Amino acid sequence: MKISDIGGEFGLIKRVTGARFEDPAVVKGVGDDCAVLEYTGDSYLLVTVDMMVEGSHFSLDWHSPYQIGKKLLEVNVSDIIAMGGSPRWAFISLVLTPETSVEFMDELYRGLYDSAGRHRVALVGGDTTHGGIMALNLALVGDVEKQFVRFRSGARPGDLICVTGTLGKNEAGLRLLQAGKKTGYLSGYLEPRCRREEEGKIIARRAHAMIDVSDGLASEVVHICEESGTGARIDRDDIPLSKETVEAARAVSGDPREYALYGGEDFELVFAISPDRVEGLRKEFSDFSAVGEILPKVEGLYILSDGNKTEMKRGYDHFGCV
Amino acid sequence: MKISDIGGEFGLIKRVTGARFEDPAVVKGVGDDCAVLEYTGDSYLLVTVDMMVEGSHFSLDWHSPYQIGKKLLEVNVSDIIAMGGSPRWAFISLVLTPETSVEFMDELYRGLYDSAGRHRVALVGGDTTHGGIMALNLALVGDVEKQFVRFRSGARPGDLICVTGTLGKNEAGLRLLQAGKKTGYLSGYLEPRCRREEEGKIIARRAHAMIDVSDGLASEVVHICEESGTGARIDRDDIPLSKETVEAARAVSGDPREYALYGGEDFELVFAISPDRVEGLRKEFSDFSAVGEILPKVEGLYILSDGNKTEMKRGYDHFGCV
Repeated sequence: MKISDIGGEFGLIKRVTGARFEDPAVVKGVGDDCAVLEYTGDSYLLVTVDMMVEGSHFSLDWHSPYQIGKKLLEVNVSDIIAMGGSPRWAFISLVLTPETSVEFMDELYRGLYDSAGRHRVALVGGDTTHGGIMALNLALVGDVEKQFVRFRSGARPGDLICVTGTLGKNEAGLRLLQAGKKTGYLSGYLEPRCRREEEGKIIARRAHAMIDVSDGLASEVVHICEESGTGARIDRDDIPLSKETVEAARAVSGDPREYALYGGEDFELVFAISPDRVEGLRKEFSDFSAVGEILPKVEGLYILSDGNKTEMKRGYDHFGCV
Repeated sequence: MKISDIGGEFGLIKRVTGARFEDPAVVKGVGDDCAVLEYTGDSYLLVTVDMMVEGSHFSLDWHSPYQIGKKLLEVNVSDIIAMGGSPRWAFISLVLTPETSVEFMDELYRGLYDSAGRHRVALVGGDTTHGGIMALNLALVGDVEKQFVRFRSGARPGDLICVTGTLGKNEAGLRLLQAGKKTGYLSGYLEPRCRREEEGKIIARRAHAMIDVSDGLASEVVHICEESGTGARIDRDDIPLSKETVEAARAVSGDPREYALYGGEDFELVFAISPDRVEGLRKEFSDFSAVGEILPKVEGLYILSDGNKTEMKRGYDHFGCV
């Protein structure tokens, strides 16, 4: 049986996560951006892991080793920040190929350290080995005050769905490169940056639920709704796009809102917040937009544009079952 | 420049570990079996990561998916136990290929869960993606009482060097398979088992230094001596071998003591212990043998056999610079 026959990556996760050894210290296992574990009396430990593989998550033709190192850290920090936490300790596992040079590694680590410095993360340990293609795994440990941790599961009907910054920039850059264009707005794809810890915390203190954008806005809203037991409406025309993303999409005859909905790793934050808390949030942090509303479950999940409803699909699936 | 030009994996680790962000909560970063982090008042958090790649760490021709899953957990649990700790939470990252079947994944997870159950480890989370070859990373978090943590660095001249169980069994099985033999003593290679938490703790309470055998006895003794600032003598003829390992080596005209010294992943424990504590240890745990002595640094590192000294080399290096 193929993995795509059981629903791809998400189906696989559901099938294999019947944990046999139960530990009461595991507050949250699978089903959020990070695992949440008992830590001190007032705080939880957060753990997230992400693997990046040559050809799937980066291309040696397009990414510099510096950019690969940077992305590896940003991907993981984003998961900690999406729970309102502080990233702290990183552990890197590398599979290098016989062709990997010392200069490549120097640049990879320069990227890692630059991003680690930006987020005040200590690179603590790791494992290095070799194989036929390059693969990099980062395990990141962080912590969060118990009272301010934000799960995917807290959204309530009536909440506004908001998103930080702009979306679609990652996919826009990828499409330019796929079309053979080596100039234009590539940085959203080649050097994605996640939000900062302080921003995540400010939002976490007011939002009901939060997640980061790693598989497109639609997929993240579906995750929130599945965990919260709600429906949702995304207002397609309200999705924030940068001028650069719009121009990049035009250059390859693409639709930038589709990039935002179903594209990849923008690493912005999506959160559900009670409308009466939006003003208070805006006083401390204003780089966000409302893009929809959490609905009762019976109303379903849909995208609204010009009065037309379309189905809200999941985003990118690594086993191609979207 | 090639990685082998700077001393391979070990040279690379030394080159890239100039951490820029210093965190006082990091008690021990690179240079031991696990990273050691401040946790509660009485205990440390231990974190270890290990990556296994198709072709380097397992072969789909030789290993069943069940055995691959089991090994992934044992490899990491061994690192926690080698510090006197308790393994607790595991986070798995998988790179699967388009050919990976659901049945394969079921078996892989059956192996993971069997080993996790044996060690009371909770499989908490992970990341699944796809690529050109199979790669698996496990990040394992554990804890240890501060007063009983054992580093590589505590050995003192006069300590006995002891090892649990028998050595060379991993390499013996590999050599049989490489010679095309599908029967004989293969389990030491195909299903390596690390020691149990309780055993590690009993030893940790009495030993000065401890490490697990992942690159051969010689390499592990070199690690202890580098971190402790000592020399050492290994008594080659005292290295414990099982009957099965001796027979396997004979079948392929190999030297089982070379397998023990320079072979791979036996996952036994090597420890340095004051001679006057050996009897006390033996009352609680007796499956170990003395194989040498920690010496003052000026006496160097050597292997003694029939009165002849030979150089103590490092073991397996993933960049081939032994």
